[in-house]
Amino acid sequence: MRIGDKHYESIWLDRDDEKAVKIIDQRKLPFDFSIVTLRTVEDVYSAIRNMTLRGAPLIGAAAAYGMYLACLEITTYTKTREHLRNAAKYLLSSRPTAVNLEWAIDKQMSVLAAYCRRDRLVEASEKTAEDIAEQEKQNCKKIGKHGLGIIEEISRQKNGEPVNILTHCNAGWLACIDYGTATAPVYLAHDKGIKVHVWVDETRPRNQGARLTAWELGNHGVPHTLVADNTGGYLMQKGDVDIVITGSDRTSANGDVANKSGTYLKALAAKDNNIPFYVALPTSTIDMNISNGVKEIPVEARDGKEVTHVEGLLNNKDIVSIRVCPEKTGAINYAFDITPAYLVSGLITEKGICRAEEKEIEKLFSEKKN
Amino acid sequence: MRIGDKHYESIWLDRDDEKAVKIIDQRKLPFDFSIVTLRTVEDVYSAIRNMTLRGAPLIGAAAAYGMYLACLEITTYTKTREHLRNAAKYLLSSRPTAVNLEWAIDKQMSVLAAYCRRDRLVEASEKTAEDIAEQEKQNCKKIGKHGLGIIEEISRQKNGEPVNILTHCNAGWLACIDYGTATAPVYLAHDKGIKVHVWVDETRPRNQGARLTAWELGNHGVPHTLVADNTGGYLMQKGDVDIVITGSDRTSANGDVANKSGTYLKALAAKDNNIPFYVALPTSTIDMNISNGVKEIPVEARDGKEVTHVEGLLNNKDIVSIRVCPEKTGAINYAFDITPAYLVSGLITEKGICRAEEKEIEKLFSEKKN
Repeated sequence: MRIGDKHYESIWLDRDDEKAVKIIDQRKLPFDFSIVTLRTVEDVYSAIRNMTLRGAPLIGAAAAYGMYLACLEITTYTKTREHLRNAAKYLLSSRPTAVNLEWAIDKQMSVLAAYCRRDRLVEASEKTAEDIAEQEKQNCKKIGKHGLGIIEEISRQKNGEPVNILTHCNAGWLACIDYGTATAPVYLAHDKGIKVHVWVDETRPRNQGARLTAWELGNHGVPHTLVADNTGGYLMQKGDVDIVITGSDRTSANGDVANKSGTYLKALAAKDNNIPFYVALPTSTIDMNISNGVKEIPVEARDGKEVTHVEGLLNNKDIVSIRVCPEKTGAINYAFDITPAYLVSGLITEKGICRAEEKEIEKLFSEKKN
Repeated sequence: MRIGDKHYESIWLDRDDEKAVKIIDQRKLPFDFSIVTLRTVEDVYSAIRNMTLRGAPLIGAAAAYGMYLACLEITTYTKTREHLRNAAKYLLSSRPTAVNLEWAIDKQMSVLAAYCRRDRLVEASEKTAEDIAEQEKQNCKKIGKHGLGIIEEISRQKNGEPVNILTHCNAGWLACIDYGTATAPVYLAHDKGIKVHVWVDETRPRNQGARLTAWELGNHGVPHTLVADNTGGYLMQKGDVDIVITGSDRTSANGDVANKSGTYLKALAAKDNNIPFYVALPTSTIDMNISNGVKEIPVEARDGKEVTHVEGLLNNKDIVSIRVCPEKTGAINYAFDITPAYLVSGLITEKGICRAEEKEIEKLFSEKKN
């Protein structure tokens, strides 16, 4: 999407340097826009782990590029299979909740199983990574087109008054390759001239809403307002929210949705106020091996310091971290929660919109079933 | 309650200086513990408005002391009735949601209507303010005793394992005169040797949980853990919350509860997970003139800067405010939401526990009915 006059994607291979994978450093946004170069498997692992990059589709693409970098690391002395298996295992350990990580690495491993020579492995892994990134991008665009219909319908019902969309965390183009998942319908609606306005949950503790979604929407010119995570319920009570759209890090076969902590609370409020709650996701985030998301999806516990401290800009100048509680206060930091399927109005996927229930999901994604 | 070895209350008259009302500066906690002196009606207005003091019961007591200071301002040239009416109106405008403000000022005005002489007005208003503060303190203690029974019962069911209590915002002794409302049962349980553990919602945007509740509990030695406001839903899904107890700024005749923004979301999650959700409140926060809280209770919109910026401690040294979003991002900041009565398991009041429904409330508080 647009940053000023330029079009960006969230990950790309440097054309002047085949060993370089480029990403936008999401930890510094919105205060600094800087590009980071990943040259090793270790670089990719760290970038995922420390959230230089984040977002389920982007994590998957980055892991695929990580396997490409692993192939580049092969020398005549490398035990190739062991090396690739180790790289895969290492990358897989970077974050537990996003299923795309597993999906992208599995895809690379099954492609690479057919080759032995370094040049072929490099070529094949590069193509697979590029394919995955391109596929995710096209999927997001399709998600956008399917979701656009829902926004258009609400716009019609409101006689062209702005459609108020609430979103949580960042399921924007930064989290994907382009367009985003939850934001794709919004960008497409806005570009088509439909009036939209986005309520942006700040999304503590890491503030991906305040830092990334607000930045994305601002750069693309989409009207939006930042709110504390606590505010969405009252906005819904007031009638100021027409639809909620979020992303998903992993969706189980029965339609339970793992997404950024706090999503579940907004889904409950949407239900209580008869507001449609949609989840936008590429099918790569569906995990058909998990039949009960609430019970089975692993939820990452991150460093409590993300809760006791907040990062931001001091005096419009320096990025600093400040403590917001007493020095000795301990904190727990679960990064995700699970929104049970019965709170989800529908899943917006690249293949169409379906209800969040086992048979519907199975029908739409039958080719993903083991 | 305890700060180190010393017992404090949140507001008091300085015994060495009859014109001085003393409060703890809640804007600086937990980083600085400093006492502020209020000498004029203007001082009280500003302290309520800028939240040097906050919390429904404390706001009521402070407004009562404000009327005492108004009486001290009377000179031979003062048009006494006009002066008192103006002071009352001015104080009343400081914050719109807390009903105690109105209640305390009305009480002072009806007492003061019987007097004309300055010395009598001063004496009567001082006594009324002291009575209100003492009454709120005793009410909190009684709330604690009634709520204690609920915690003891859960403790028995868990065979003495720690009772996990989630609370939102600060309904602690800082918000009241002593004990607190939501925290009163917790302090009493802890002091009685019952194992408790409190999940403290940080309560963005002003972080009263992270800054005040964590500080209070820490000083009193009650085990607690800070969480982002988004986390409570997942904690409940995991079975890590036994009971939710919050305070209330205003409760309508039908049992709808206005409290800090985000309370409603926790109530929804508690309901969805079959966890009891209690509201602890003195009857002074019940507004029998409002029959439908969701529709009628006024909700204050505060400065958006509280959302775009966060205050905290830099390098363990300086209290600073940092921006957490792009420079041009706008924000909306509703300070409260309304938890509908059907989500409330019960109201814990100084007169006992009752269901959040019109007839029960009317029965328990019949003397409050106009």
